[in-house]
Amino acid sequence: MKNTFGTAVAVTLFGESHGEMIGCVIDGLSSGVTVSEDAIAKALARRRPAGLNSTSRVEPDDFRIVSGVYHGKTTGTPVTILIPNTQNHSTDYENAPRLARPGHADYTAHVKYHGFEDFRGGGHFSGRLTAALVAAGAIGAEALRQKGIVIGTHISSIAGIEDTPFAATEQEIRAQIGTLSALSFPVFSQKQGEEMQNAILAARNEGDSVGGTLETAVIGMPAGVGEPFFDSVESRLSHMLFSVPAVKGVEFGDGFALAAHRGSEANDAMRIKDGKVVTLTNHAGGIYGGITNGAPLRFRIAVKPTPSIFKEQATVSLTEVKEEILSLKGRHDPCIVHRAAPVVDAVTALVLCDMLSLTFGVDYFSPASNPS
Amino acid sequence: MKNTFGTAVAVTLFGESHGEMIGCVIDGLSSGVTVSEDAIAKALARRRPAGLNSTSRVEPDDFRIVSGVYHGKTTGTPVTILIPNTQNHSTDYENAPRLARPGHADYTAHVKYHGFEDFRGGGHFSGRLTAALVAAGAIGAEALRQKGIVIGTHISSIAGIEDTPFAATEQEIRAQIGTLSALSFPVFSQKQGEEMQNAILAARNEGDSVGGTLETAVIGMPAGVGEPFFDSVESRLSHMLFSVPAVKGVEFGDGFALAAHRGSEANDAMRIKDGKVVTLTNHAGGIYGGITNGAPLRFRIAVKPTPSIFKEQATVSLTEVKEEILSLKGRHDPCIVHRAAPVVDAVTALVLCDMLSLTFGVDYFSPASNPS
Amino acid sequence: MKNTFGTAVAVTLFGESHGEMIGCVIDGLSSGVTVSEDAIAKALARRRPAGLNSTSRVEPDDFRIVSGVYHGKTTGTPVTILIPNTQNHSTDYENAPRLARPGHADYTAHVKYHGFEDFRGGGHFSGRLTAALVAAGAIGAEALRQKGIVIGTHISSIAGIEDTPFAATEQEIRAQIGTLSALSFPVFSQKQGEEMQNAILAARNEGDSVGGTLETAVIGMPAGVGEPFFDSVESRLSHMLFSVPAVKGVEFGDGFALAAHRGSEANDAMRIKDGKVVTLTNHAGGIYGGITNGAPLRFRIAVKPTPSIFKEQATVSLTEVKEEILSLKGRHDPCIVHRAAPVVDAVTALVLCDMLSLTFGVDYFSPASNPS
Amino acid sequence: MKNTFGTAVAVTLFGESHGEMIGCVIDGLSSGVTVSEDAIAKALARRRPAGLNSTSRVEPDDFRIVSGVYHGKTTGTPVTILIPNTQNHSTDYENAPRLARPGHADYTAHVKYHGFEDFRGGGHFSGRLTAALVAAGAIGAEALRQKGIVIGTHISSIAGIEDTPFAATEQEIRAQIGTLSALSFPVFSQKQGEEMQNAILAARNEGDSVGGTLETAVIGMPAGVGEPFFDSVESRLSHMLFSVPAVKGVEFGDGFALAAHRGSEANDAMRIKDGKVVTLTNHAGGIYGGITNGAPLRFRIAVKPTPSIFKEQATVSLTEVKEEILSLKGRHDPCIVHRAAPVVDAVTALVLCDMLSLTFGVDYFSPASNPS
Repeated sequence: MKNTFGTAVAVTLFGESHGEMIGCVIDGLSSGVTVSEDAIAKALARRRPAGLNSTSRVEPDDFRIVSGVYHGKTTGTPVTILIPNTQNHSTDYENAPRLARPGHADYTAHVKYHGFEDFRGGGHFSGRLTAALVAAGAIGAEALRQKGIVIGTHISSIAGIEDTPFAATEQEIRAQIGTLSALSFPVFSQKQGEEMQNAILAARNEGDSVGGTLETAVIGMPAGVGEPFFDSVESRLSHMLFSVPAVKGVEFGDGFALAAHRGSEANDAMRIKDGKVVTLTNHAGGIYGGITNGAPLRFRIAVKPTPSIFKEQATVSLTEVKEEILSLKGRHDPCIVHRAAPVVDAVTALVLCDMLSLTFGVDYFSPASNPS
Repeated sequence: MKNTFGTAVAVTLFGESHGEMIGCVIDGLSSGVTVSEDAIAKALARRRPAGLNSTSRVEPDDFRIVSGVYHGKTTGTPVTILIPNTQNHSTDYENAPRLARPGHADYTAHVKYHGFEDFRGGGHFSGRLTAALVAAGAIGAEALRQKGIVIGTHISSIAGIEDTPFAATEQEIRAQIGTLSALSFPVFSQKQGEEMQNAILAARNEGDSVGGTLETAVIGMPAGVGEPFFDSVESRLSHMLFSVPAVKGVEFGDGFALAAHRGSEANDAMRIKDGKVVTLTNHAGGIYGGITNGAPLRFRIAVKPTPSIFKEQATVSLTEVKEEILSLKGRHDPCIVHRAAPVVDAVTALVLCDMLSLTFGVDYFSPASNPS
Repeated sequence: MKNTFGTAVAVTLFGESHGEMIGCVIDGLSSGVTVSEDAIAKALARRRPAGLNSTSRVEPDDFRIVSGVYHGKTTGTPVTILIPNTQNHSTDYENAPRLARPGHADYTAHVKYHGFEDFRGGGHFSGRLTAALVAAGAIGAEALRQKGIVIGTHISSIAGIEDTPFAATEQEIRAQIGTLSALSFPVFSQKQGEEMQNAILAARNEGDSVGGTLETAVIGMPAGVGEPFFDSVESRLSHMLFSVPAVKGVEFGDGFALAAHRGSEANDAMRIKDGKVVTLTNHAGGIYGGITNGAPLRFRIAVKPTPSIFKEQATVSLTEVKEEILSLKGRHDPCIVHRAAPVVDAVTALVLCDMLSLTFGVDYFSPASNPS
Repeated sequence: MKNTFGTAVAVTLFGESHGEMIGCVIDGLSSGVTVSEDAIAKALARRRPAGLNSTSRVEPDDFRIVSGVYHGKTTGTPVTILIPNTQNHSTDYENAPRLARPGHADYTAHVKYHGFEDFRGGGHFSGRLTAALVAAGAIGAEALRQKGIVIGTHISSIAGIEDTPFAATEQEIRAQIGTLSALSFPVFSQKQGEEMQNAILAARNEGDSVGGTLETAVIGMPAGVGEPFFDSVESRLSHMLFSVPAVKGVEFGDGFALAAHRGSEANDAMRIKDGKVVTLTNHAGGIYGGITNGAPLRFRIAVKPTPSIFKEQATVSLTEVKEEILSLKGRHDPCIVHRAAPVVDAVTALVLCDMLSLTFGVDYFSPASNPS
């Protein structure tokens, strides 16, 4: 459905960039899951712009949970999170001529909604909405953590500058994920990270922007989750990942690189270790036939460069049939790749909560069914 | 849902590689759409193995439409297509020791279904099932064609050997798509196509397999179709594309290449041509903010090398906790990239029929609402 | 889905009786629909307790629309309505022993949510939640009205005392519906209405409660809306109607009375009037084969007597395995039948908006496609 | 969705009365469930017309299971059942003038599908389709039985003649259900059953038809299944029940009778028996707040009299704007109430399989998670 995704655990997203607030509803999560406002605040902080590289609109993200949590735990009924918008300068928009910003949804929203859309700051299409997803995902991530499942995302590349990839073993990846959650610019190689930041500043100085890739790993997923065909793990995850603004590519395991490999290189040999089936490599990204095989989930996404740039751009008017030249002013990130990392973590958490609950039942995350 | 996908137009898929038949149900397509058994047969023929490069199991694909079509046109109620399996040699399987084939769903299906799965030839996970999708997609494609929407897929690369990409203009792409439907090995450059086939044969001779990429273009989609967030065109299409066996990557427009570009290079400038808004380039693949912008849809998928290879592979038993060495025999394609092209066309057609019907109503494809 | 219903137009409901607020999200309604805060306030006022017959918890229902409406019209993206809870006396609950109130969800919620549920005032199961549905439905009703479709519900009976049924002709029913919206105790016969109110007072004086039935009519639905089998108009409407707390029966047209009729009495003869097909009677309630036939939709629901009564009741503890005697105190309606009328109008409006949008497209209610 | 219903366990229905075959796909049922072709055949036999009271079209119902069952057990992937139509006399229809049969979907299907519908014998709207539901339900019932859950339906009334209702205790009802499965005319009182059959014959002799009611009981449902609001047990069950052709009313527990009762009469007192919470009465039909409370599920449906009668009826042409008089010939049941009983059992089984799997996970019915 349009702004609702999930079957056993579903998230509904609402709000606009310059409306009173944004928010979301998470429905179907097991009762009894601990909800840490601190963990939500930390996740939101990771998404918030920081430092020279980012937009100057800084929202405090003073979220409120207004339903579904009682005495610090989920009740099992819908959890609603509201995040007020406080830093919106709507008057900037009301009187400006309406031009379609290339690369944005301005034009397509105008066609679809016949001019009734709230266009200010991108309206419902704004990256601002992802704050609500991050808050929801933080609750989902906590539920997963209680089952030993952890998710981490690092910047795989920005402007062509590449970070070290995730390590090979579960143990190492788990340690890496632990370090990522503390970083607002999540890279493994500090040196490469600095080069990326220089590339961002260079683009910014030219009124331009840069893109990049993110790599995500999930440790602890049990084997046997997912479905043949239309609910494959890849189908479900890509559905959500492609709903994150600016994502234009998703690949699992070795992804596009597999296209140039031989089957003998691509297949993951299977062995037995401590009585458990394991794969010796993980080219498949932890998914065989759409179903988890017990190895770490591994995928990469492509984030296009921020379309909001300060260079002059050829475009059209939205109020008359007329060509125009756009000169953007205001607050815009020259790069959103690092800010997208917690969003990817969040949507991954929500999809996995859904698939696990669908497979193992609605009480999967409940302390009632997980005696410690 | 597991084996049903779509909202206004939904497809349900069933069958196993070595069962009596496979098939599908298409529900929600407008009444009055012409169903050409010839067009279905042609689409199935494109998917069928042919020549030296392919498996020796050749099914005649004598499909039957057993519901939902009356006097050659859709009735508006579920269309059911059955395709018998005739060339299955099930006895080959019944007595063989059950080993997990690396890269296949054997192991994950075993975990998920506790040994009750029909494992013969991959069972429900077999690429064989895609024949039913191709038949369904051929009906969808016919409906789209009546609205001026055409879909084409060519081999973008095999074993690293690249074909010429789609042309730049709608007119040229439309002409290219016209040529593709006649080809069982759909490439634009004959020379590159020959090199690809040589690479396939080389792999085959070594008991190995190769992968590749496919590039798809859609011409004629109206602007304004799609949704913000969870039903973006990318979300919907990727959901279906990743349900096609062996697909491990999906990218829209310039996809992963965008990650290394600047915003000034990635944005598609907008102009007015013949009173209509157009983009001067199409880096976004025809989608802005999850919604079609009227430019051609353009995406690429990565197809992993066929996991069925004849080299010895380290694996495990499915009936006891034991390491094994697998030596595959039987009929296996050294490359399925070209055979996946009509499958990609088919699932694309089904997703677009769904999204168009959801946007414009269930009669969108009906001659009653399209007087000629 | 649990707390989301609808396909093209979906509503998501959240909140608890004693939480900070309740609310809902309406997703998929056409852009450009006029949103009248006044109409919402009037609908909420009809649901609010009034007079001697009702509970003394009177919420002001100061709703806020926080997304999806811009300059007084729907934007096409999710509309979110928040309604604060101000009159909850939560401390009443925190220290009281937890006993299952017979006829309530206390026990079943306890089993389902393992004691983590917010039980105060029934929590998420409270009739309080229907205020959010009423607000959402008021927007839907306005959209329908712009297409000439109107909905009205009167009290068909309370405590066995029956009101005059809806009239026979469309014109008469349309006039009747016009009068109903002004009534907080919607009956056609004032005399019968007074008797009903006396019966309510009599029950109240004995610490008891009464139930009743509601009859709903919808005028203006085009023929051809609905689906065979699982999305029949009856299926969709009953799904929503049975989600309204206290509803235990739903019948369409002559409903259960048809069971004792002959086919020759039950069939609605068809004739032509002003070039249009009409039925001479309407025993089928405007639905043939799950699809509207152009006659008024007509259905009745049974509302059980309020389970909150002041008589002593045998029940059990929720915190230990122990039989208890319950003596309720506090604020409870002796009858909620009349308050359920605007809720039934609301959910009917939401279901019809969904089905019409699914049939005719997402712009069905848009002024862009309805030039005046 | 139109012809697919269910979330964790979904059924898709297809076919037409005079097409080559009808059938259905059941997706999501646990692997390892025993599939008894004999049980399916027996369920189909109960739905088949028999004796003087029924139509002379008698289909052998030689179903085939063509997917999803391997070595007599479900595989966990889609189960497809095909039932050929052999007794259709299509030529009867092709040349007859097309008149809308009052009470049938002829007219509404014509409006909806613009004349492209397969109208022969009611096409996709025919009661014939329910044979596929009965077959699917027989598999679901078997899965439920392995968990101690049994379903039974008796004729509550025909033509106003009433059968004895279900007994009061679980033990008695379980015994009653055991007797029902052997009866093609399922009543508890033989005497009342004979009177009903006389009433049917009397109607038949007058070229007329009769309706009735069915009462269903389910024993063994665990408490805690169902959802607040939109997925209440009543919502889900009524959705499916109203998709059964001719059903015009559904009530749970005491249903419409509750409307005239006081709260003190309607509430089910709760006590503890053998350490378990029980209700002393069952006015609520085993459902509190949309969620099962552990008492038997109990509901009644109203079946309208067969609309196919032999008396002359005023109607309209479907091919021109013209009033006509319809004189039906051919094979038509004077009563379908008894034949609807196994259909109600079947759809009830399918809904409960879905809700239980959604609550407890996809392996709920698997022998792997139910060691004996």
